[in-house]
Amino acid sequence: MVVKINENYLKLKSSYLFVEVARREAEFQKNNPDADVIKMGIGDVTKPLAPSVIKAFKGAVDEMGKADTFRGYGPEQGYDFLAEEIIKNDFEPFGVSLDTDEVFISDGAKCDTGNIQEIFDLGNKIAVTDPVYTVYVDTNVMAGRTGEMKDDGMYEGLTYLKCNAENGFVPELPKEDVDIIYLCYPNNPTGTTLTYDQLKVFVDYAIEHKAIILFDAAYECFIREDDVPHTIYEIEGAKNVAIEFRSFSKMAGFTGTRCAYTVVPKELIGYDSEGNEVQLNQLWNRRQTTKFNGVSYPVQVAAAAVYSDEGKKEIKETIDYYMENAKVIKSSLEELGLEVYGGVNSPYIWVKTPNNMDSWAFFDLLLNEANVVGTPGSGFGPSGEGYLRLTAFNTLENTKEAMDRISKLNF
Amino acid sequence: MVVKINENYLKLKSSYLFVEVARREAEFQKNNPDADVIKMGIGDVTKPLAPSVIKAFKGAVDEMGKADTFRGYGPEQGYDFLAEEIIKNDFEPFGVSLDTDEVFISDGAKCDTGNIQEIFDLGNKIAVTDPVYTVYVDTNVMAGRTGEMKDDGMYEGLTYLKCNAENGFVPELPKEDVDIIYLCYPNNPTGTTLTYDQLKVFVDYAIEHKAIILFDAAYECFIREDDVPHTIYEIEGAKNVAIEFRSFSKMAGFTGTRCAYTVVPKELIGYDSEGNEVQLNQLWNRRQTTKFNGVSYPVQVAAAAVYSDEGKKEIKETIDYYMENAKVIKSSLEELGLEVYGGVNSPYIWVKTPNNMDSWAFFDLLLNEANVVGTPGSGFGPSGEGYLRLTAFNTLENTKEAMDRISKLNF
Repeated sequence: MVVKINENYLKLKSSYLFVEVARREAEFQKNNPDADVIKMGIGDVTKPLAPSVIKAFKGAVDEMGKADTFRGYGPEQGYDFLAEEIIKNDFEPFGVSLDTDEVFISDGAKCDTGNIQEIFDLGNKIAVTDPVYTVYVDTNVMAGRTGEMKDDGMYEGLTYLKCNAENGFVPELPKEDVDIIYLCYPNNPTGTTLTYDQLKVFVDYAIEHKAIILFDAAYECFIREDDVPHTIYEIEGAKNVAIEFRSFSKMAGFTGTRCAYTVVPKELIGYDSEGNEVQLNQLWNRRQTTKFNGVSYPVQVAAAAVYSDEGKKEIKETIDYYMENAKVIKSSLEELGLEVYGGVNSPYIWVKTPNNMDSWAFFDLLLNEANVVGTPGSGFGPSGEGYLRLTAFNTLENTKEAMDRISKLNF
Repeated sequence: MVVKINENYLKLKSSYLFVEVARREAEFQKNNPDADVIKMGIGDVTKPLAPSVIKAFKGAVDEMGKADTFRGYGPEQGYDFLAEEIIKNDFEPFGVSLDTDEVFISDGAKCDTGNIQEIFDLGNKIAVTDPVYTVYVDTNVMAGRTGEMKDDGMYEGLTYLKCNAENGFVPELPKEDVDIIYLCYPNNPTGTTLTYDQLKVFVDYAIEHKAIILFDAAYECFIREDDVPHTIYEIEGAKNVAIEFRSFSKMAGFTGTRCAYTVVPKELIGYDSEGNEVQLNQLWNRRQTTKFNGVSYPVQVAAAAVYSDEGKKEIKETIDYYMENAKVIKSSLEELGLEVYGGVNSPYIWVKTPNNMDSWAFFDLLLNEANVVGTPGSGFGPSGEGYLRLTAFNTLENTKEAMDRISKLNF
């Protein structure tokens, strides 16, 4: 006997997308040392933490330095003081009530969307959208729920729901029965959304098929339009079929500070092989208490400050700033006659390449001729081919300059 | 089709140990409202973070509040500035050199020791010590590497290596071939250690059997004796067969602040089903970059301050304080004629119950007659029966008072 590795890892293709983007950018910069390259591929926030968040954060650090206020191990599920603010601010205004033990504070939506599959059987059939946030796919590959990657870039055994201009980026229901559906709205990478009615179609499917929706709402804070649900639990029956993932990353600039949460309603049921019902809340609780040890206490205090009156005001200003950038990008590109999606309820703008260029050709054109870096859509899945993602996380000045440069190109 | 749960979770027994301890304690307190109960079962630190750690922590929070020093997503593996301090301070003094990409910063040794099994095949044979830190066992149960729990409290398919007074708490090598061995030294819960020569026996076994040692050294900072290795890499050949887990939790009071690290040397090799070699460093890197998003930046800065001259001095004082408590407990109980283990290189004291009482009977005796709360050894595994764990994390005053009360008991 010798120690054997988890061979499913060998099915993963190296995540070449951002590596290749960086390589081409570096090569261009080397050959054009004076070029002022504007990065519009950034999927990370750029504005600092809000003053009221900083204040609370430092206050909690001070508590950790004094014997009478020091905190050791906290609950793995997070502190109630934060869960209560989350429920009061993120759910109750939308008519959704939750108990604190249905909210699991964590260190990231990436971690949670990656780990959640552990509580499900390896035999479940999985559906993802195409294009897709690759963590959903890769974590299922690593767990062994797929075969090899095929030549078309899709893994054997996974169901892909196409999202493109032809269907208005609204995925059709899976044609074969599936047990678990990953949905991300507002969507990364396309920036598009589902309306109540469009999301209800999926909730109804899940109810009918006793399936589960894993709903990633990490970009909820950017929603501006009335008919876009802020939480899947606004849809009737969703508490019986959906787990929702939320994050402070984009909402409050916590990408380097790390705090997120996952909602697992107690109504949510899975089945064992004999058809007995099992509460998913209990399983996720067991997973988290066994393999996780809670979020840093000062970080949880900082996250709670996001919900203070002052915090809300400050955070709204930052989000408005990003969304102004998104508006500039969208309107500028539309004026050029380009087909543009997203950017209304999302910091992501998904541009159809002109003249049926492929994603990388358009990427190279923008880099070489406008010195603007985007992200090729094909990197997010086969249906992303022919698109490019731009993001609103740069400064307004750079964003305007980038649009100005692009407007001078001949497509 | 319906969504199916991971049925391995149903094999887990509810972790009743600390729940039952709390229940008995609460009941006693209710019936004896005036009793001054002293908690010696605490597995958590009680002293606040060191002043230099607080200062660095707050400085980094300030950085997050300013546009020019704000940090978004960091490397999932952690920042080099921390990895460099770790290597310089925790390994080089013991003659062990490492590259920064062999050190993976994380939010907890519990998380890492729980997650590490994901990179290994489900068919590997696993060995754990008995008694054991239950995370090693439970995470393998959840992954499906075991059968059901048997009446003796052991899971089918796992190999248990007994540690008790008869073998001086030095586990024998597994009688059947195993692929992965979990070792925790200084040990939780027994507080005992392995010498160089004793640990070398395991390293040699792993080399010979192409097995892997998962070495949990979360309590390294308490080592006082010269012949106890501070890192498994002090043993020749260990870089080829061992992953080491370390933590700032007990070392610097980070149980509520969350920072740890795991060392995966590049020499470390696993095998695919065709016998090809695969670098485990690459697999863990893939696991962490896909399912984890790095530790909070201010927390990493705080952890790095542990290695400053001032930080080292402050932290040593706290550790010395705990170890003075350990000394008091050990010498007091020995004076009473009890058999006592641990407490020399560890904050844990493992007491043989007098007169062959079982663990819970001794627990009840101490609670009812001395108003002192310990942790029944049987909760850590069958070989823990007949032992009780006391910890050094209380105040010196309470520790002395507890020993005084116990000395008045008649066993």
